[in-house]
Formats: sequence, structure tokens, C-alpha cells
Amino acid sequence: MDALCSSHRRVRLGRREKPVPLDLSHHYSVVTKRRMPSKIKEAYKFFQIPGILNVAGGLPHPDFFPFDTLEAQAAKPERWTPSPNHPGETAVSSTPSPDSAAATHIVVPKAVDESDPVKKIDLTTVLQYGLAAGYPPLLSWVRQFTRENLQQDTPYKGGPEVILTCGSTDGFSKTLDLFVDQWTEGVNDITERPGLLCEPFVYTNILGQAQPRGVQVVTVKANDSGMVVKGPGGLENVLANWDPSKGKRPHLMYTVTLGHNPTGIVLSVERKKEIYDVCSRYDVVIVEDEPYWYLQFPSAAIEEAKSRGLPPPPASSHQKPRRSSGYPFLDSLTPSFLSLDTDGRVVRLDTFSKTVAPGCRLGWITAQPALIERFERIAESTTQQPSGFVQGLISELVLGSSGSGSASSATNQRARTAFSLLRSPRDRAAFTGWDTSGWVRWLEGLRGSYERRVARMCRTLDAGATLITTTPTILSSPHSDPDPDSEWAPLAVSKTTLYSFRWPRGGMFIWLRVHLEAHPLWQARGPSPQVPLLDGPALAAALMIWLTMKPFRVLVATGSMFSANEEVRVEEGWRYHRICFAAEEEGNVDLAAERFVEGVRRFWEVTDVRVVGRLLGELGPSGEVQALGEGVSSLGWYMGC
Amino acid sequence: MDALCSSHRRVRLGRREKPVPLDLSHHYSVVTKRRMPSKIKEAYKFFQIPGILNVAGGLPHPDFFPFDTLEAQAAKPERWTPSPNHPGETAVSSTPSPDSAAATHIVVPKAVDESDPVKKIDLTTVLQYGLAAGYPPLLSWVRQFTRENLQQDTPYKGGPEVILTCGSTDGFSKTLDLFVDQWTEGVNDITERPGLLCEPFVYTNILGQAQPRGVQVVTVKANDSGMVVKGPGGLENVLANWDPSKGKRPHLMYTVTLGHNPTGIVLSVERKKEIYDVCSRYDVVIVEDEPYWYLQFPSAAIEEAKSRGLPPPPASSHQKPRRSSGYPFLDSLTPSFLSLDTDGRVVRLDTFSKTVAPGCRLGWITAQPALIERFERIAESTTQQPSGFVQGLISELVLGSSGSGSASSATNQRARTAFSLLRSPRDRAAFTGWDTSGWVRWLEGLRGSYERRVARMCRTLDAGATLITTTPTILSSPHSDPDPDSEWAPLAVSKTTLYSFRWPRGGMFIWLRVHLEAHPLWQARGPSPQVPLLDGPALAAALMIWLTMKPFRVLVATGSMFSANEEVRVEEGWRYHRICFAAEEEGNVDLAAERFVEGVRRFWEVTDVRVVGRLLGELGPSGEVQALGEGVSSLGWYMGC
Repeated sequence: MDALCSSHRRVRLGRREKPVPLDLSHHYSVVTKRRMPSKIKEAYKFFQIPGILNVAGGLPHPDFFPFDTLEAQAAKPERWTPSPNHPGETAVSSTPSPDSAAATHIVVPKAVDESDPVKKIDLTTVLQYGLAAGYPPLLSWVRQFTRENLQQDTPYKGGPEVILTCGSTDGFSKTLDLFVDQWTEGVNDITERPGLLCEPFVYTNILGQAQPRGVQVVTVKANDSGMVVKGPGGLENVLANWDPSKGKRPHLMYTVTLGHNPTGIVLSVERKKEIYDVCSRYDVVIVEDEPYWYLQFPSAAIEEAKSRGLPPPPASSHQKPRRSSGYPFLDSLTPSFLSLDTDGRVVRLDTFSKTVAPGCRLGWITAQPALIERFERIAESTTQQPSGFVQGLISELVLGSSGSGSASSATNQRARTAFSLLRSPRDRAAFTGWDTSGWVRWLEGLRGSYERRVARMCRTLDAGATLITTTPTILSSPHSDPDPDSEWAPLAVSKTTLYSFRWPRGGMFIWLRVHLEAHPLWQARGPSPQVPLLDGPALAAALMIWLTMKPFRVLVATGSMFSANEEVRVEEGWRYHRICFAAEEEGNVDLAAERFVEGVRRFWEVTDVRVVGRLLGELGPSGEVQALGEGVSSLGWYMGC
Repeated sequence: MDALCSSHRRVRLGRREKPVPLDLSHHYSVVTKRRMPSKIKEAYKFFQIPGILNVAGGLPHPDFFPFDTLEAQAAKPERWTPSPNHPGETAVSSTPSPDSAAATHIVVPKAVDESDPVKKIDLTTVLQYGLAAGYPPLLSWVRQFTRENLQQDTPYKGGPEVILTCGSTDGFSKTLDLFVDQWTEGVNDITERPGLLCEPFVYTNILGQAQPRGVQVVTVKANDSGMVVKGPGGLENVLANWDPSKGKRPHLMYTVTLGHNPTGIVLSVERKKEIYDVCSRYDVVIVEDEPYWYLQFPSAAIEEAKSRGLPPPPASSHQKPRRSSGYPFLDSLTPSFLSLDTDGRVVRLDTFSKTVAPGCRLGWITAQPALIERFERIAESTTQQPSGFVQGLISELVLGSSGSGSASSATNQRARTAFSLLRSPRDRAAFTGWDTSGWVRWLEGLRGSYERRVARMCRTLDAGATLITTTPTILSSPHSDPDPDSEWAPLAVSKTTLYSFRWPRGGMFIWLRVHLEAHPLWQARGPSPQVPLLDGPALAAALMIWLTMKPFRVLVATGSMFSANEEVRVEEGWRYHRICFAAEEEGNVDLAAERFVEGVRRFWEVTDVRVVGRLLGELGPSGEVQALGEGVSSLGWYMGC
């Protein structure tokens, strides 16, 4: 049936007719299926009656809100300097404007006299109960930005819809609500156990969200270019050889394609096509979580080669999108899974957490309209809507007021117009905020800032990756007998690679493999019965603690934090450390890299097992070397891991 | 076991020792049980290392936030005029202060140099990732307000804890996450089906949240004083005679005790004691949802009697709390279920939706610490935290900045101090905002405003409740034969009670029973095969539509919207209309009541069945008279029903 479906659709595509997105309701959870469809249209005509007094709703009049305005000092979109979109190009603006630090004052007034809800930004509407899909002006803008600029030309008929979320943790929680039935061993049949496909290293919170529901995390092999499709452990292999006695064949995949967390990979369109094709054949829904979407670093490959004295890499084959977004910056980014989504099986999560601030708790989901309708029903029963405080101020930031503030409240107007959003919210007013061009300019500036940061850190890390030691030659052969007092006594020069890494192609993280197997104490007898052997996990934990001590004082994340399961944690997790170049203040970026380098180099001088024992003692009474990983995992949401 | 538990605890109470709250983990859902406990303490020591550079977290530096301040024009707490706390008393302030409309300007600065997280209100912290429990200064204030002022002297040892929510819909959603396992017919055993106890008329959203999870809604009889405990249909009866073949005996109750929605009831302490006792014996968790907590109307009973020319009611026996909250206003309110909660089985939901604005999406849960710990784990996997925009501005409103703004960012300070919240956040700085006294003053002012509104509306409704008609006597007896031309022809004076209601004792709603059985068309043959008989549901729907038409133009909510199940809807729902006196602007409050009165009176003049037919035609193609109720139900979240 999968194959039939797929070939049928290809025929339609061949006719250059966009296909209607597939009905995915067979994947809905039971709870989601039970949610009642909205009968909003049957009721809203009553709200629209001119002059009607509405005493049906249970809500306070806006006069009773203790806020008369919401205001902010907001950055101009030019605050940060962009970097080039393609290697060798010149950036749009290579020097910051003279008043780049200046701010403009924005105001959300109490009431605006405007009948069109997508043009009306005021406290009477944004601090009132509102639509689960989002505040009309902001929803309208996000929808237009998504459909016209970010994901233009989605291959299914009519294109995707959007719904605002309280950030992407909320977005993924709702995605699980939509697609996953809770499963319990002993209660539910094993063949019904839901599965989630993901890379071996994954954003930790995802596991914390999925596993309590009984979801089986199913890892797919990954290499330097992302999830592997063919061959042992690859996606096709996992799905084709699925053993139903271990659970239901997974119908959900979680991935980050641009600046993967923690590995920093940018998935190529070619790889995406291969993955999508398999997902289409095996009826897998792809959840594409893209918090770092705009953080792609076109200079990474070239600068990496330069830093390491290697020949320049072949020019990347960036294809121009079929239809321009109108912004060279957006056009330069590797397209989303949505650009391949003929079936309507992609659920994409976007967030304002890294473009504005994590504390926004604001983002959006993009997917085919039928899925967005279900997300609206879920939102009505859980979060209702993102806070009006953030919706109002972000609306004001990107759109600005369309009218002047007015003291007159307009309840009926409000009730009447809020629902006219049900007409397509395409046309927008002449707003005074950043608008889309300012928004894109802001994103470009952020990318520029982060791209410069990552290059600086990577160069420092490159410079310190190899330990060169000169030691007197150890003589093992009896016929060689040089004079020990000779000033020409031969010295052995040994080169030890302490760690290796690929410059991240996107995102916020450098993912280093520390070669602990080259450490002097590798596989030495451990310091205590609790740690009988200084294996990878033990040395990795000790190094992480070591780095937090004077004079290094740098806190890095360990690979165990991001291991999708116990097998990955034991076999691979200990090999990696993740460094974030986004969180520290500007002046500490180089310092953090220098401290890390110094710390690792000095760690190689540790030859006393007891030192490692003391370091591991720092992990506290639980004593297990992986405990910190878990401890920090539960901090993941706090740290934005 | 229940009984044993209960008597054992009473003995302890008898010794005047506060009991430890019960372990309720047997009520946790499977998913909740599976959530990992936080190992935050194992990790946070690393964040506290002085001078450490944190490149472990995945978060942007606050310099990259496009907001340099958040600001607002905020009301002074004296904006509205209070009403007396007890009948006959004088209000704290009976006249508005001269500058009552004035606003003060509040600012959340970019960075404040302050090491104590509960004293630090700035954008570097509030717009960053944060604690699931809430933003430290706001959490600290809410916790203190709840424990010291709102719910002082909770009977279990140590008292309750709090966690912030994204409003009470989110709060109840998380409560269901905590206590309810999803249930599906044919998959799960009927004896495992979870149940939710509630009144026959209930806030609609609750049903929309519970039912898709497979929860059985179990209604308990209610009278003018709230949920009935003894006798047929009462709480004890429902639980004692529970038939396990219809599901699991409910272990969860949902109720609103102060200003019940839709009925306007304030549950007395005596009734609460009876209900709590039964819940304790049958191990039922009580979810007390109190959006209208401060809207208790002490004048209602007296003014109702006055308006109706009845003798004054006996003085209410308000008991002073064992320990004063420090605020006569708070002391005057009927105590919460928490005040009786020796077992720790009360989960209370509070919200800023009616005290600040619905668009806040901000509230809090109060419960025993073990439950709050589980709520934190749930929050980490769903909403993470309420938006920093609302947390920051509400913090600033009630607390104000403790220090002056500073341009220097302080990342490590942030990391170090955020976790010292794990020490008890009791002590607070000398803030400059409203503080608790201002907050209470604001609540008093709102209560005063709403109490005056409800009295005006109720008086108008009282005046129009009876229809007096004079008609020529219809002569049926042949021996009576008066002269038809006589100017003294006898006239019959008929008095028809159109509707009856109790003045609400609290909340935002007037709950009217419309006596449709006295309508001229009652039980007349219907206008079409779809509506064969003008029964209660048909006439109620027609009246609702009729009221939306010229010249009445007033939209009321029908009782069917709030019916807990089909039985209630059919038997009782059609009898009621709910009028909200909070939503309209001041000038329309009387007008809405007048229009309603006029509309109902004129509806009694409708004697043509075809008119009703046309009205019902307005309900649209679905044609069913209950459709609108359902349609509006799905609007419940929008309307704040």
C-alpha cells in the first residue's frame, strides 16, 4: 500500500500537478482522534452582529487590565554585522552602522481603532483570550514569512499552514500528543509499542519527552554528513528489517538538519532526498526541529582547510532554489525537508528562542493543514495560546503599530473582528516595525556574529589539538649504545592527537572527539573498587571535572549527555565533548577555547591514578561516572541543551 | 485502608501535631511515574564555581537579545474603588483617589548587578532559559503570597509548595497528566476507566480536556449551596454505590468553590468540610480551580432581599481565620479547600487571567511538595516555563527593581545565582513595585467594581422577571352572562414569572433559569420534521437567537454549553442562560440587562410557531437545536467561558 501510494503520487507529480497532502489520520493517537473538531464557524456569526452586547463570554473587560501600554527598547535590525552568504562574496554590510548599538522605542498601545484583526496590535486584543493558532497579526506575519520566504514552493497543493507554540519543547510535546499513544509494558501489546527514529546523538530533552510515554528510541547510524540511509544500521536497513516483536515499526523520526545538536552537521539536500524517500516508502512522519536554522556557516569548510594547512575543499554545489525567497540570505540556506514534502509528512518546528530569546517561549509549527487543525485542538486543551505579552511585543517589533493609540475601548469591534481572521490572513497593513526585511537582516547579523565566533574558537582548538613531546629515545636494542653525555643524544619526537573535530557547518556547537585512548592512563587499573579500570567513561568524566578546576575553569558538556541510549553512551558517548560558542560573552569566547586547550593538554600530564580518583570523587555520592551526564541532562531545558 | 489511614491521621491531628501529607503516588499516571527525578543538585555545583566559563549550555548570550528593556505603563493599585468586606462596613476607600487613572512607568532593565536570584529582575535572566518552577523573583513572591497571605496555616506539616503555570488551562492539563492514564474502550479494561467528579454544570473546557483521554465524567448532584454530599445523587452516594463495571471509582474531583462557573455559588466552609471528609475517606484528589477567588460579593444576599422586597436575610456567620493573612479583605473570603487539607489531597489552580489579563497565560498550582515536584517534571517536558515577557513584567509590577540597570552583562553571575534558588526562596529584597499590599488593594478594587456591576444588573433583571398581563376573562360557564358592552367587564390579571435567579455570591456570572414551560408555545407542535415539538431545548435555542436580533442584540450563553453530560443537557441544560457582567464596557452593563429583559418579555409575545421555526433556522445546516451549544463550547477557551 505504501508503494502504491507513493507511485500513484509520483505519476501525479509527473503531470506537474501538485499533489494533495496524504491523509495521515491513521497515525493520530487515540486521544487526538477523540478531540472534537471546532465548530467555531457556527458560532462566530453571532459575534459579528453589529452592535451586539456580548455577555456570553466569561472574560474581564480590558479596562480592568492593569497595563495601559507595553513598551520596550528594541534593537535596530542592523545591530550585528553579517558575514558573506557564499565563500568569497562580500557581506551585505561588512561594517556595523554608526548607531548600531542604538535602540528604538516600541509601544503596544491600550487600544487601536482598527477593524482588521491582522492589522490591530493593542492590549485590548493581545491581553484578552485569543485564538489557539496565535495572535492574528503575528500569526499572519509568521504564516506569510514561512510560506513566502522560508518555505516557498512547498510541493503539496495549497502549501503548509502554521500554528504558534510556546517554543519548540511545547511544539514537540504537542507532536507527541498528536502521533503517539502512551504505551506500557504488561498493559499494552509489544507490537503496539511506538518508536522514534533519531541519530545516535540527540538533543537530550527529546528523550525525556518521549520515553515516559513508553516510546522506544530507535537509533539510525550517522556519519559526518548526517543520518545514514543505506547499509548496516542505516535508515532503510532499520525499517526493512524491523522485528515486530520488539515494538511497532517506527512511524516518527526526530532530527535537526541545520546545525545538528550536538554534532554541528548541516544535512545536504541530497541526503535529505534519500531520507525522505525512505520515510515516504515506510510511512514515517519526519519531525524537523530547526532552532538554529539561520546559523549556517558557508565559510566553515574553507576556513577549516586554511587553519589546518590543507588544500581548499572543492566548491560546494549550492543550488539556487526554484523560486527565490526574495532574500539572498534565505536563498543561501540548505532547504528544509518541507521543500521535498510531496506527501505532507513533515512537521517542522521553529522557535524564537535563538533569534530573539529563549525566555520568549514562542515558536511555531509548520505542516500540512489537516495536521495544523489537530494541533489547534491540542493547543486549546493545553496551553491555549502563547502569552500575549510576548506575542504583543514581538508583533510590535516586527510589524509595529498600524494606527495610533486610542483610549476608547472597542469590545464589540474586538469580538467582531477577531473572527474575520478565519478568512485567509494574507493581506497586511503598512506596518512600521522591522518587517520581513528587517527580520532577515537581524538573522544575517546573528549568523555573522556566530560565524566569527566559531571560527575564532576553532582556530584556537586547531592550534592546540596536537601534543608534541620530545623524549630521550628509549633504547631497547643492545647493539645501539650512544654516549649518554653527548649533546647530540637522539630525542624521539612524539605527536599525540589529543582531540579531533570538524568545524561545525551550522548551529551553536563544536563537537570534539577526545582521543582518550591516547592518554597515559588509558586502561590503567582504577583508583577504587567503584572505578576498577580507567576506561573511556571514567577518563571522560575525570576530564570534564578537571576542566572545571583552576586554572582552567571551563564547563563543557559531555557526550554521554546526548547519547540516545545506553549502548551509544557506553560505546561512543564518552569520546565526545560539546562546546557552545554562543552562550559566553564576547570577551570570553577565545578565553574559553584557550582554557579548554590548556586543560586538555595538562590532563595528558596526569599520570597518577589517584588524581583521577579524586576527580571522580567530585561527582558526588552516586559515584557513577555517568551520573553527571544524567544530572546535566535533567538540566537540559535550563541550559537550552 | 482508606478508613485506617483517615483515623490514624485524626489521632495525630488530635495531638495538635501537623500531619505529614499522604503519599499519593498510587494515583500518579504511568507516564508521570516514569518521569525521571531531577538530578539538578548534582550538576548545579559546577555552575556555581566562581569565574567558570560555561560553554556547556546551549543558549545565546543575552547581548544577542533584541530587547534592551521591557517597559509598561502600569496602573496604580488604587485605580478601582473597593466595596465593603462585610455588609454594613465601610470600604477601605469608598472614593477613588484623584489620580486613580494615572499610571506609573515600570522598566525591566537589561542587566542588574545583583547576586541573589530572588532579588534580580532583569532581561539577562528573565529572557534566558529558566527554572520550570518559575522565575525566581516571581516564584518567590507567589510562594510567599500563597503561603503567608492566601493560604496561611495549611494543616499539613511544612505547608504547600507552588509552581507557576501558563494559566489554569495549562494547570488542569498538567493535573490530568499527573493523575490520569489514557483509557480506550476495547484496549483497556473497563474497570480501569478513570473518572472525574464534578457538578452537573461545569466549566466546559474541563470536559474538552478530560474526555479525549477517556475520562468518564461523573456528575454529583448540586443545589443552591453547591455539591450535595448526602442523599440520592450526592457525593457519598455516588462513591459508596460505585459500580466497578462502569469504570474505576473516581479518584479525582474538579470544582470551583468561590464564584462557581456557571452557577455563581460560593461554597461554604461547612459544605467544604463535608465534601473533604468524603474525599478523604474515598481517597479522592480535589482539584480546586479558583479564577474568581477574590470576587466574593458580601452584599449579594442583602441586596437581593432588598431588591425583591423581602425581609433581610440572617447575618452570615463568617468565621475569622485562625491566623490573619494580614489583610482584612483576604480574611473576609471563604477559606479554600487547602485550609482543610490534612491529607495533602488538594491541588489548587490560581491564575492571573482575571486579576491581570487572560492573555498573561500565567498562573500557579498550589499543592503538597511531592505533587509540585512531579508538576515540575511535567513542565520540563511540555511548557518548560511561562514566557519571560509576562514573568518579567508581572515581577516588575508587583515587586519592582531592586537595583538600578547596568549595561554590564554577567553570565557567570547568572549561572551561579540561578541555582541558589534551590535554597528556600523566602527572603526578598526591598522592592519598589506594588508589593503584596498593593496587590491586595488591586484585588479589592476589582471586587468593588464587579460587585457594583452585578448589583446593577441583578436589580434590572429583578424588575423585569415577572410579566403582568391583563386579559378579558374567558367565560366558560353558561350561567355567567355579563353584558359585553359594559365598561366594567371583568379582566383577569395574570402574573407570569419569566425567569428566576439567585444573585450570584461570587464570580463573574448570573445564572438564570428561564421558565420556558410558561411560554405560550410550550409543547406546541413544531414547525418542521426536524423540530417536531417546541420543547425546552427548542424554545431555549430559539430564545438565544431571538435575543441576538434587533432591537435586543444581546448574546448570552445557554445552559447546554455547561452541561456535564447529555443527560444534564437534555433534562436541565435548556432551562438556563448565563450572563457575564464582566466582559462589557462600563456603559453597556445596564444596557445589556435591559435588552435581555426586553428580549425575554417580547419573546413571550411570540405565538406563531413559524417564528420559532425561522429562529431555529438561524442555527445553520446542522439543524440540531443543541448545535450552537456545542459550537460555542469549542469557543469556550476563546471566550474564557
